[in-house]
Amino acid sequence: MHRHFQGKRILVTGGLGFIGSALAHRLAGMGANVVLVDSLVPEYGGNMFNVAGVQDRVRVNISDVRDEYSMQHLVQGQDFLFNLAGQTSHMDSMRDPYTDLEINCRAQLSILEACRKCNPGIKIIFASTRQLYGKPDYLPVDEKHLLRPADVNGVNKMAGEWFHILYNNVYGIRACALRLTNTIGPRMRVKDARQTFLGIWVRLLVEGKPFEVWGGDQLRDFTFVDDAVEAFLLAAGNEAANGQIFNLGGDQVISLRDLAELVVQVNGGGEFTVRDYPPDRKPIDIGDYYADFTRIQSVLGWKPQVSLAEALKRSIEYYRLHLKNYL
Amino acid sequence: MHRHFQGKRILVTGGLGFIGSALAHRLAGMGANVVLVDSLVPEYGGNMFNVAGVQDRVRVNISDVRDEYSMQHLVQGQDFLFNLAGQTSHMDSMRDPYTDLEINCRAQLSILEACRKCNPGIKIIFASTRQLYGKPDYLPVDEKHLLRPADVNGVNKMAGEWFHILYNNVYGIRACALRLTNTIGPRMRVKDARQTFLGIWVRLLVEGKPFEVWGGDQLRDFTFVDDAVEAFLLAAGNEAANGQIFNLGGDQVISLRDLAELVVQVNGGGEFTVRDYPPDRKPIDIGDYYADFTRIQSVLGWKPQVSLAEALKRSIEYYRLHLKNYL
Repeated sequence: MHRHFQGKRILVTGGLGFIGSALAHRLAGMGANVVLVDSLVPEYGGNMFNVAGVQDRVRVNISDVRDEYSMQHLVQGQDFLFNLAGQTSHMDSMRDPYTDLEINCRAQLSILEACRKCNPGIKIIFASTRQLYGKPDYLPVDEKHLLRPADVNGVNKMAGEWFHILYNNVYGIRACALRLTNTIGPRMRVKDARQTFLGIWVRLLVEGKPFEVWGGDQLRDFTFVDDAVEAFLLAAGNEAANGQIFNLGGDQVISLRDLAELVVQVNGGGEFTVRDYPPDRKPIDIGDYYADFTRIQSVLGWKPQVSLAEALKRSIEYYRLHLKNYL
Repeated sequence: MHRHFQGKRILVTGGLGFIGSALAHRLAGMGANVVLVDSLVPEYGGNMFNVAGVQDRVRVNISDVRDEYSMQHLVQGQDFLFNLAGQTSHMDSMRDPYTDLEINCRAQLSILEACRKCNPGIKIIFASTRQLYGKPDYLPVDEKHLLRPADVNGVNKMAGEWFHILYNNVYGIRACALRLTNTIGPRMRVKDARQTFLGIWVRLLVEGKPFEVWGGDQLRDFTFVDDAVEAFLLAAGNEAANGQIFNLGGDQVISLRDLAELVVQVNGGGEFTVRDYPPDRKPIDIGDYYADFTRIQSVLGWKPQVSLAEALKRSIEYYRLHLKNYL
């Protein structure tokens, strides 16, 4: 894989964010020429500290994917686009649906138009989400499950994903989509639950404070960030991915209550309270979810390598050292 | 049904268009208070002549669904919204994807936001399209078929449809969607193929000129406009429709070549040539399509009443009388 990305020109949108910066670290280590685009909107995942250690080996370009002209320039000459910029909060998408639409839907179209006009040879890997499925009909959820998004974010991400598949199919701009489940690990947002509820759990644990579990019975799966990065790289390096959609998943299905117990155990202590699922979130709740990821396993040879307990351990260790940079 | 709509306040977007105006005629005849919103964009289906005969019994309001403030005012106090305004041309959506997005995606969100803020008691029937399915995996296509839109129009209509279902599910704003197949009949656009290819066939036949059949082997189904109107009214009048999606269809599946022969026969003469499917349209071609409409049949009791031959006959008769108003 090293050889595949060495010297390659790579653009990462959302490149100062959680997964984007993990990709940046990995790609810089392989000798790729990496440009990270990030708007650093305070409510989103971008954080300059996320590139600490590789800041001299990547180029950071602060701009917004909604800015068509910047993007039109930035895509030029790139071999790969890892397209991870997005508004991720489900609740924020309901409060401000237009911003979610501009970022997750319209900006995706304009990025693809920029590639069509200025760099049709680029290959794009789009960060999609399990949110497109809404409340599952069956578990585990495979890619044949109907898309029935349960919040504005899910509708816009669905459109954004399909613009990618469409531009692959109609214009031959190679693109594929990974439908991520809960991704966790170092560099995730921990200020609040906008990116993942686990962020705020880890932060409170590290601060020695009790955290809250909502509901507790819901089943979920988790991908460690390095495993997610591996999936992005495999999809980029394999032409069989073009035009395809793949679920990511985890090898352990766990209830939120059991997850809370596991994270306390991994931390060597800590407290949590279980409370009712908040009424304002109930209408957009998707219930239990976990993915069938056999498709990416058979087509690209991906499977999760890092156990949930290990993922939690590495997350806690990271924020014990670096929490102050994430508050 | 008369009683259900008599005296009711009804807003129709795209109300001067093909199906919207047919709804207007029917609703005015039932004594409803009808407001028709239309932007009369020259490339779309709106035509003042479409309300000839009922112009004194409906109120026409020229405005665009992209105009949030107009819509915010216009939805107030309405009992029903028949939401038919849209950009319908597949080719135009590829040439100008942003306009398609603004109308078919963003404006739908803003109409729903207007209803949420100003009239949450309204009931909405949204005109969706078989275009969401893309190239079918199997035939006939039922509502369980995956959505894999094959052009920009399909992606934006998919988002527009799902905003409706979402606002029904999350906010209780009663909404449902009808996925229309080829709708034909009096008042369809015949200037060009932007709304339906049959329009241009009928126009050329009436003008005594040969028309072109592209490909010819493709299978299609057709709904006569009065049958489509009936489906909208049934969905409006039945609470079982809320949050639901229904295919419309026709009771005859026919190849384009056989359709051309049928329309010539119904016309009592005429000529056509069969040519290859145009290369610029091939990438967004969906191949054969016809709908399974058993769902709306069992839930709402709808089925097509007007045969294809009769639909063609009524269309030709209409344009023999009124063609000059459509050029």
